[in-house]
Amino acid sequence: MTKFSFDLQATDGRARTGVIHTPRGDIRTPAFMPVGTAATVKAMLPDSVAATGADILLGNTYHLMLRPGAERVARLGGLHRFMNWDKPILTDSGGFQVMSLADLRKLTEEGVRFKSHIDGSTHMLSPERSMEIQRLLGSDIVMCFDECPALPATEAEVAKSMRLSMRWAQRSRDAFGDRPGHALFGIQQGGVTQELRAESAEALKAIGFEGYAVGGLAVGEGQEAMFGVLDYAPDMLPADKPRYLMGVGKPDDIVGAVERGIDMMDCVLPSRSGRTGQGWTARGQVNLKNARHADDPRPLEEGCGCPGCRNYSRAYLHHVVKAQEIIGSMLLTWHNLHYYQVLMAGLRAAIAEQRLAGFVADFHARRAEGDIEPL
Amino acid sequence: MTKFSFDLQATDGRARTGVIHTPRGDIRTPAFMPVGTAATVKAMLPDSVAATGADILLGNTYHLMLRPGAERVARLGGLHRFMNWDKPILTDSGGFQVMSLADLRKLTEEGVRFKSHIDGSTHMLSPERSMEIQRLLGSDIVMCFDECPALPATEAEVAKSMRLSMRWAQRSRDAFGDRPGHALFGIQQGGVTQELRAESAEALKAIGFEGYAVGGLAVGEGQEAMFGVLDYAPDMLPADKPRYLMGVGKPDDIVGAVERGIDMMDCVLPSRSGRTGQGWTARGQVNLKNARHADDPRPLEEGCGCPGCRNYSRAYLHHVVKAQEIIGSMLLTWHNLHYYQVLMAGLRAAIAEQRLAGFVADFHARRAEGDIEPL
Repeated sequence: MTKFSFDLQATDGRARTGVIHTPRGDIRTPAFMPVGTAATVKAMLPDSVAATGADILLGNTYHLMLRPGAERVARLGGLHRFMNWDKPILTDSGGFQVMSLADLRKLTEEGVRFKSHIDGSTHMLSPERSMEIQRLLGSDIVMCFDECPALPATEAEVAKSMRLSMRWAQRSRDAFGDRPGHALFGIQQGGVTQELRAESAEALKAIGFEGYAVGGLAVGEGQEAMFGVLDYAPDMLPADKPRYLMGVGKPDDIVGAVERGIDMMDCVLPSRSGRTGQGWTARGQVNLKNARHADDPRPLEEGCGCPGCRNYSRAYLHHVVKAQEIIGSMLLTWHNLHYYQVLMAGLRAAIAEQRLAGFVADFHARRAEGDIEPL
Repeated sequence: MTKFSFDLQATDGRARTGVIHTPRGDIRTPAFMPVGTAATVKAMLPDSVAATGADILLGNTYHLMLRPGAERVARLGGLHRFMNWDKPILTDSGGFQVMSLADLRKLTEEGVRFKSHIDGSTHMLSPERSMEIQRLLGSDIVMCFDECPALPATEAEVAKSMRLSMRWAQRSRDAFGDRPGHALFGIQQGGVTQELRAESAEALKAIGFEGYAVGGLAVGEGQEAMFGVLDYAPDMLPADKPRYLMGVGKPDDIVGAVERGIDMMDCVLPSRSGRTGQGWTARGQVNLKNARHADDPRPLEEGCGCPGCRNYSRAYLHHVVKAQEIIGSMLLTWHNLHYYQVLMAGLRAAIAEQRLAGFVADFHARRAEGDIEPL
């Protein structure tokens, strides 16, 4: 049986490319992970997600524990079988979403007690329960249960929260147990304070994980502050393990994160945008609701290999978005996920060939051109 | 260039099987036509619709004329190219939906003036305009513009309406012109009165059409009354031309209509049901919302070849329906359209092999069994 391992193949500046090996298949890095919150990447069949080039999906522990329930998923053969996705799955710990979505939260050293936003039922999430849920789901990459403090927060609040998360990281490691082929990732916290980031990194390295996430970013601090942290935080984590930036991001966030040594990312943006008529292209974001597309026979993105661009005009996409037809969500989600994976493949090739600076310059130049002119 | 023609290949009792040849491909009859109202079969990509076995789609003139507009579709290369469906398309005339959906209708000998239910704009539909719109869309099978009286209606009202429709049928024929490879179908009216059905059939035959529809049914009269009309109405129409029953129906409606000599049908039921958590199987209708499916690892329908049944459990379908995930609509629509096409293929084979009575008996016996027992 393949063990979980990371093969770092090339670097270009701080950027890295490699392969994460898992029993369920390889993950080419830098990797973008589409989000399959409730056991589905919204508006996509799994075969289509794989066709975009995704090697791994993210599932949300908070949503899945509430509905359909982790024990139920386990009885049904695990999340992969349940949702018909046989490649790797990473699950978050539930920590972030219990703070952002649940009602009546009560945070203690033990964990978080909360009421479901779906039916009001009471639940407890702790490091031990989060590990149990992620094991029941059958996740390939399990995330430590952590706390992400709500912004704005004082440095003292951030420090206190980070130290709680580090105690929870040890409890997560202890509860995870010995699971060959499965990985547990620690999550660095510490906000935008370099000393706290360093303290967190040391605490995590002392415990030891198969990979490390940079947590507590992409929570509203803005790209400049995020890049400020990424200028130093990834380098505090072991170079021979994957580094995962949680919840990022827009294409230019992704490029900047990869430049700063990030190997994995996830975000709902491409799929969520696809359900609101937004298309992401090399020339930026395109709002298909705009009337200028109504008679445009050109594809959303010339040369794109997704079904939406190969088979349909902007006029059609405009029509189905305006008419709120499901196919609009299907085609635009597919396009966006495809565009993101094309971007990741471009980044990987550029790093492997030591030409990332040129790739990034070209990326920004094409975006600066803006969308194609109306006919 | 292939002309439009109907090749009647076998009969079994009053039931018929054959092939309609068109320049865009053959249509095996009896045929079920999925409905693609607004240039999309809701929640399906066209390749998937074709994969279910559909040879032809139906498009709605009323919806398409209002949004995106027939002239726009024509500028964009026609409806087939617009919606990426290269097989035949039948369009209705708009007559039925202008009466059921539009606001402020005014019916005259000339046609119907109405306000759009989308934006309140004023439009006119007449035989001539309906023919023009269907030509602009590029429809392969064009329907005469007719009036379908609202129920309940007196026999005198039905007679008056039918005679207006027959005058409109002549105007439709005149306006259709000479379009090789395209067909114009007349629509028989006359409600549930045999003499009026006969008068309508004679009027249509005197004009001459490439096919004939039995209209004015499936509008709330009930299956018994509908079958009562189908006991005589199809035989009033030319045997060497396709006979189309508009807006039908449930699987048992379809079987009964085929037994009575119908060659073509259309209905939103399989696709609409798929968006409300309903699955159609050989053993009847299954409500996937029902909690009894929550832990059921079995497919919706054993042996079914659709992706929903091949790759997912009832538990998964229940979960995504309850969570209102788009994939629930996608998988159940696909299943339902697949089931309908399997039913049509079974009917065609049974007629060709002179064993329709046995097929129909088996169809009803399996439905009588009801859905599989809960585990």
